[in-house]
Amino acid sequence: MKEIGIALLGLGNVGLGTYRILANHAKDIERRLGARVRVRHVLVRNAGKSRPEDVPASLITHDMKTILEDKDVSVVVELMGGLSPSREYLEQAIASGRNVVTANKALLSAHGEALYSKALARGVDVHFEGAVCGGIPIIRTLREALASDRVESLTGIVNGTTNFILSAMANEGASYADALRRAQELGYAEADPTLDVSGMDAAQKLCLLASLAFSARVSPESILVEGITSLTPTDIAYGREAGYVLKLLATARRAPEGLDVRVHPAFIPAASPLADVSSAFNAVLLQSAALGASLYSGRGAGDLPTGSAVVSDIIDTCRNLLAGVSGRLPLPCPPHVHDVPLLSSGERRGPVYLRFSVSDEPGVLGRIASVLGEKGVSINSVLQRPPRPADSHATIVVFTHDTREADVAAAVQWIDSLRSTRAPTQVIRIEEGPGVLLASR
Amino acid sequence: MKEIGIALLGLGNVGLGTYRILANHAKDIERRLGARVRVRHVLVRNAGKSRPEDVPASLITHDMKTILEDKDVSVVVELMGGLSPSREYLEQAIASGRNVVTANKALLSAHGEALYSKALARGVDVHFEGAVCGGIPIIRTLREALASDRVESLTGIVNGTTNFILSAMANEGASYADALRRAQELGYAEADPTLDVSGMDAAQKLCLLASLAFSARVSPESILVEGITSLTPTDIAYGREAGYVLKLLATARRAPEGLDVRVHPAFIPAASPLADVSSAFNAVLLQSAALGASLYSGRGAGDLPTGSAVVSDIIDTCRNLLAGVSGRLPLPCPPHVHDVPLLSSGERRGPVYLRFSVSDEPGVLGRIASVLGEKGVSINSVLQRPPRPADSHATIVVFTHDTREADVAAAVQWIDSLRSTRAPTQVIRIEEGPGVLLASR
Repeated sequence: MKEIGIALLGLGNVGLGTYRILANHAKDIERRLGARVRVRHVLVRNAGKSRPEDVPASLITHDMKTILEDKDVSVVVELMGGLSPSREYLEQAIASGRNVVTANKALLSAHGEALYSKALARGVDVHFEGAVCGGIPIIRTLREALASDRVESLTGIVNGTTNFILSAMANEGASYADALRRAQELGYAEADPTLDVSGMDAAQKLCLLASLAFSARVSPESILVEGITSLTPTDIAYGREAGYVLKLLATARRAPEGLDVRVHPAFIPAASPLADVSSAFNAVLLQSAALGASLYSGRGAGDLPTGSAVVSDIIDTCRNLLAGVSGRLPLPCPPHVHDVPLLSSGERRGPVYLRFSVSDEPGVLGRIASVLGEKGVSINSVLQRPPRPADSHATIVVFTHDTREADVAAAVQWIDSLRSTRAPTQVIRIEEGPGVLLASR
Repeated sequence: MKEIGIALLGLGNVGLGTYRILANHAKDIERRLGARVRVRHVLVRNAGKSRPEDVPASLITHDMKTILEDKDVSVVVELMGGLSPSREYLEQAIASGRNVVTANKALLSAHGEALYSKALARGVDVHFEGAVCGGIPIIRTLREALASDRVESLTGIVNGTTNFILSAMANEGASYADALRRAQELGYAEADPTLDVSGMDAAQKLCLLASLAFSARVSPESILVEGITSLTPTDIAYGREAGYVLKLLATARRAPEGLDVRVHPAFIPAASPLADVSSAFNAVLLQSAALGASLYSGRGAGDLPTGSAVVSDIIDTCRNLLAGVSGRLPLPCPPHVHDVPLLSSGERRGPVYLRFSVSDEPGVLGRIASVLGEKGVSINSVLQRPPRPADSHATIVVFTHDTREADVAAAVQWIDSLRSTRAPTQVIRIEEGPGVLLASR
């Protein structure tokens, strides 16, 4: 039986998950592939770190040179994370003619195009299913199943940490800080949660997906990214009264003026299939010309889900090696991606939820309504609550009709400067779209 | 630019959808593939039938020989349906060295293994994404993404017609007959709906999916298949009171005694993501060792969804032609499928819903409970309703604990023979499983 040698870079969560799936499913993989996949090296940077018992000491190396000089290594699998030395290692692997697999979303987001171009020039494969939504084969779906189709929009819940926190806030009325603490205790959030809660992790994933779905060059720096840190259980409760669930939504859609790509919290209809995606699960809803609506959901991350995605990439690239082909699938680099106009966020139109904290005195609602009207923000419904005994302010909640974001921003800026306004106005976008696509009985 | 010639067999719904996607998305496909896909022939059997305006008359042929003799045809795409002559045509195409694509589930169900084996021997590809759940890339997912994993169970709603009918019965309290009539008027059901409502269409799809997921040889004749014709809105209403939704469920799962493969109506928890799959949508829920739970949902059929699946297959097979490879993915024929023991349906254990129609007289519930106890069927809850004025009988509904199916059948047979029983007892299985996997907020 033929044998294909691979090297794993990194033995963290995903590295170990990958190693174990390769070991535990070896027979099945062998049968499906018609060849044996043999791990020849596992690169570990920290020599002092204790090694799991099931990884033989003979496989461990601390030197990338050992791997590059082993002629029997055909595939290099990068699972170290970070930008460096993962980037250099991948470049060396590509330059030496190895096919590579990576689950490093941050790296691909920052330097993906350069890596893909090098691989294209060198005639080797790059696979990266594990980089986005580990438990959902969404990269494969976009690269292959949707190759026949024209994607109109892509809407996803692609960050498990924020989804866990928002679910906890919704279910238990917990504050953001308490929900974050629980997420950290349970291992759903890092000690420094910034990347997740700022929306940046979701933005990196979205840009990768959008580049595949729309053959477009999109970077997190060029799109609107808002995180979840200013959200409160009060907002979630008001939204629920109106039939909405609050999610951190990643959206990319074709608009007449350009591609509209954004990450921000959004109220979505409770009947939407995305509203049911809880805790550490991810989901992606595609709308495409021929297929119509299709939904993909599964675990977002974790050693085994992501490890499974990585191993399916290893199998794929081994199939190509066995067949003696490369570059079977186009990579998201030129000539397959283009610069496209992006819709400026101020030009986006849609309904929004506004929560005003105001002094409890006559005429306040009238003033707010006047400003909104002045700026062209049309009110759909209003909810005014008297201040609770402990509160120094009253709350006015407004759901608007479709409105230009720039108009909302101008109105809010004005209202926040009024003497009667006690705290900055909360603005949350409403996305009705995902509700009507697949649902409901 | 290179050009790959293809021939379409059949110009019905899916044939025309395929033709139009190839035409409308030609530029995108060309860019992604790096080659042009050119339709050289469209085989139409009925010469008299009117041809859509956008298909040039010069492409139409009535003779398979024209296609086989055209050296520039590299891919034959069978979209005629039926068992013959589609089988002979595909065999001829394979024998002449053409890669083939088919969306013919019935044919694959009956003669798939023979076709795959011929293709394997001849070194050509067979692709069949369009054969099952057109709008969901589930074949691709099982063949590629899950190649790294071990599928534990597969639960699907894979027949849009029955899903539409059951949704209509649930939403409007319509009788089966009325809901079927509406489905026929709207084009969701055929004039002869037998294949769908008997569960046989779902069984054919399930067996295809199971053969891929479990590398097992499973045929519709060897599994339990029950349709929806005896279901009533009354049952749906009783189930709803207990928190269930009624679906035609296709299930395959590993059990210690063998593979448990079945198609039948089942009550599933209303919180299950499968409960939300309405009307003409399909969904497949996978549980696998590494990935955990993952859900795939989209339109089940239709010219464009299925056409899109067919075109993605055409692109895939063209990629292989351009790379000069074939047999990249294993086909579900020996050596990749095996005979495996199947769990006999009587041995299956699970809760069931029983609706008894009995005469309204003392002691009836006691007799029924005694028989159930005698046969080892343990009661979870009971609901007894007095007869409505118009009815000649009272209704007793029992939800059982986990029970062997053979024991339920024996108890029901006994109870149906009692003098106090007025109509055959309704038995509906309950599947709690799909509820706990992905849900819920």
